[in-house]
Amino acid sequence: MRTPIREILKSTAPYDEIHAAGWVRTRRDSKAFSFLELNDGSCLGNLQVIADAGIPGSEDLLKMSTGASVQVVGKLVASQGGGQAWEVQATSIRLLGSAPDDFPLQKKGHTTEFLRSIAHLRPRTNLYGAMFRLRSRMSYAVHTFFQERGFHYIHTPIITASDCEGAGEMFRVTTLDPTQAGAKSFADDFFGKAAHLTVSGQLEGETFACALGNIYTFGPTFRAENSNTSRHAAEFWMIEPEMAFCDLQGDMDLAEAMVKYLVKEALEKQDGDLSIFGKFVDKGLRERLEFVAENAFERLPYTEAVEILKKSGKTFDYPVEYGLNLQSEHERWLTEEHFKKPVTVFNYPKEIKPFYMRLNDDDKTVTAMDLLVPGIGEIVGGSQREERLDVLLGNMAHHGLSMEDYGWYADLRKYGTVPHAGFGMGFERLLMFVTGMGNIRDVIPFARTPGHCEF
Amino acid sequence: MRTPIREILKSTAPYDEIHAAGWVRTRRDSKAFSFLELNDGSCLGNLQVIADAGIPGSEDLLKMSTGASVQVVGKLVASQGGGQAWEVQATSIRLLGSAPDDFPLQKKGHTTEFLRSIAHLRPRTNLYGAMFRLRSRMSYAVHTFFQERGFHYIHTPIITASDCEGAGEMFRVTTLDPTQAGAKSFADDFFGKAAHLTVSGQLEGETFACALGNIYTFGPTFRAENSNTSRHAAEFWMIEPEMAFCDLQGDMDLAEAMVKYLVKEALEKQDGDLSIFGKFVDKGLRERLEFVAENAFERLPYTEAVEILKKSGKTFDYPVEYGLNLQSEHERWLTEEHFKKPVTVFNYPKEIKPFYMRLNDDDKTVTAMDLLVPGIGEIVGGSQREERLDVLLGNMAHHGLSMEDYGWYADLRKYGTVPHAGFGMGFERLLMFVTGMGNIRDVIPFARTPGHCEF
Repeated sequence: MRTPIREILKSTAPYDEIHAAGWVRTRRDSKAFSFLELNDGSCLGNLQVIADAGIPGSEDLLKMSTGASVQVVGKLVASQGGGQAWEVQATSIRLLGSAPDDFPLQKKGHTTEFLRSIAHLRPRTNLYGAMFRLRSRMSYAVHTFFQERGFHYIHTPIITASDCEGAGEMFRVTTLDPTQAGAKSFADDFFGKAAHLTVSGQLEGETFACALGNIYTFGPTFRAENSNTSRHAAEFWMIEPEMAFCDLQGDMDLAEAMVKYLVKEALEKQDGDLSIFGKFVDKGLRERLEFVAENAFERLPYTEAVEILKKSGKTFDYPVEYGLNLQSEHERWLTEEHFKKPVTVFNYPKEIKPFYMRLNDDDKTVTAMDLLVPGIGEIVGGSQREERLDVLLGNMAHHGLSMEDYGWYADLRKYGTVPHAGFGMGFERLLMFVTGMGNIRDVIPFARTPGHCEF
Repeated sequence: MRTPIREILKSTAPYDEIHAAGWVRTRRDSKAFSFLELNDGSCLGNLQVIADAGIPGSEDLLKMSTGASVQVVGKLVASQGGGQAWEVQATSIRLLGSAPDDFPLQKKGHTTEFLRSIAHLRPRTNLYGAMFRLRSRMSYAVHTFFQERGFHYIHTPIITASDCEGAGEMFRVTTLDPTQAGAKSFADDFFGKAAHLTVSGQLEGETFACALGNIYTFGPTFRAENSNTSRHAAEFWMIEPEMAFCDLQGDMDLAEAMVKYLVKEALEKQDGDLSIFGKFVDKGLRERLEFVAENAFERLPYTEAVEILKKSGKTFDYPVEYGLNLQSEHERWLTEEHFKKPVTVFNYPKEIKPFYMRLNDDDKTVTAMDLLVPGIGEIVGGSQREERLDVLLGNMAHHGLSMEDYGWYADLRKYGTVPHAGFGMGFERLLMFVTGMGNIRDVIPFARTPGHCEF
């Protein structure tokens, strides 16, 4: 049985016999012995192995080039050289698989564009290994945050016949072949009607909040937007909590607590992986994350945010006016320049928000909220939901949503309606925030974007 | 702030003022007061509330019928009656939302078929509330099992241009409209080529195991099979671990450890929810689960399994012969009748297994394994993967898989190949096993099956 290198490096005492395995990152040879740096993906750190010429397996040492896989048995001893506490004096070494000279990760300094083209190999680099270990730990932190607070995890459907936003561009899911000539009918399709990939699990999530109290979803969502930006992917993971007996204040409280919790987890439980992003991607990363973890967030109504932006004296590309959406440049100015901390903006004009948000008593604004963070802008968007049946039915009629499609959603208000609220957070946005990575394609194992569906 | 009923029922002392909210399950009235049974979805148990006529809000008591939502403030006191330790003496009560007489969950004893037709309301019943709380806890247990063992969680892509099994019936993902007349080309589609919903994340998972060591996936997978059975859904969640430097033995060890762990979690951490399945669904449930949690599993080669089945003297619907797949009836007989415990069958004929499984030295069998449990049959299927480049390329050619589509998969063997192994477990199969529920439609929030894509 091999011991993961993560555990070996944390050892508190030498060992007479230790088994390790991994991929060679570098090898240096002298006449009498070779140094190998071995990585097994369990952590960022490498295990230094000293293999004397003449030990069993040493006849293959020259084939143990960068990328090759090897097994080692040896003594764990305090390291003579600097840079590591422990090293292995190999008693035997075995080549598992060589790596021919055309192995693409021989040298450092590849562009992220090139590394995306070999997405099946890039997790073997330090940066992407760290990225995807961190993605795993942050995923688990999301579950831990909600489970510790008594939230139930709900798998809302991926294939759906409804459309939460009423406007999203959606992928079709079909067993019909669109390249075959001749008109077909969705009545002949697998589900007997048109079906799509979900853009949000919120509406289905609400049905469970109105039964189990506090719930969350964490699953893939999809947008068929033909936009090639560094922030958009066709497939991404969303986290959507929903709370019964909860208003907008409780919703903002949860969003802020969650962002703080996840940032703290990234700072504390990342086994050294975060360091590489601070070193090569964003020098100010740790400082920014610590600031977010430790300071209170600002909260202000949309109306005040618009006033502040108007008085800023700053020239924006997009206009600032009551009734218009805040653009990314406005959001970033508020959080980065003006408040210099995360900001939650709430109570937006009803005209620019979806049908399900609760109308305020002013009859002009709805209980929407967006949480903005430095470097990203909006990271969370949510609202208290309209729980009054008559108001909701009015909104549905106004937006042209039929009772045939959304009657089940209205039923939640007809039978034992309760105030409830929730929000959505794009998981990739969070990862970009905690790593400083600027392109969403670099935080997803295999990114799907217009024209790209490799692997 | 309300206190969840789960916490109130676990109270160790009375409280002068407690806030609760929930939905009315039943109400009984006398002249002087009413008894309400309140459920907030945090647990199976109800909170008994005694509301005297005359307290604030009591004028609405008659509207607080089954399904209505209410808020209560009151004293938590030791209960006078049997059946519960605590009850609330209300000092005020407030109707949040009434439930008209046509609320479908007035009476008990609805058929599961009817309840599926109101899948947005059925989590408000005891049985389905328990089901989906249990689903949440089991999901978290899956993550905890792997995270505690140093496995990294990988989000493999949902939209894919490859097909793991080489044979699965897949849904298309497209932005083309198949109901419009005239032939179109996939070159004009969103991804510039044909794309589908994944049937397995295994191949992509292997790329990460060959970089990070031990990984797992847990996400939705899809089958476009037009089969209307109690065990098939078009959309379901799969768990797929993959381990580098691991052989078939290690793979079987992990599968057995995981099944035992999850069954123990269901027995121990379900807050009373499991009891309702033992009571109304499967009387022998707890006994069966405890047996699985506590006893060693049987392991035997496929060849021996076939011999035992042939000698059984039992008449099966499907023939038993070396070279044929084991059918569900064979699997269930082995585990339920013959061994009377879970059974792992391994080393299957290569002809009936996929291209990626490792060929044994006998040149006839591959390192496949299936874990069979009573009442279900196969719950886990896995294998050691073919890590030898030349053998894999031969298999790919034999199965007609092109280097253009699967070159990246072959690269894992070309560069630093390692022995590796993994398996898949259908999460819904597990839930059916731990609850005794016989229909997959009853363990999924909103099931997708041929002709059905409601909500």
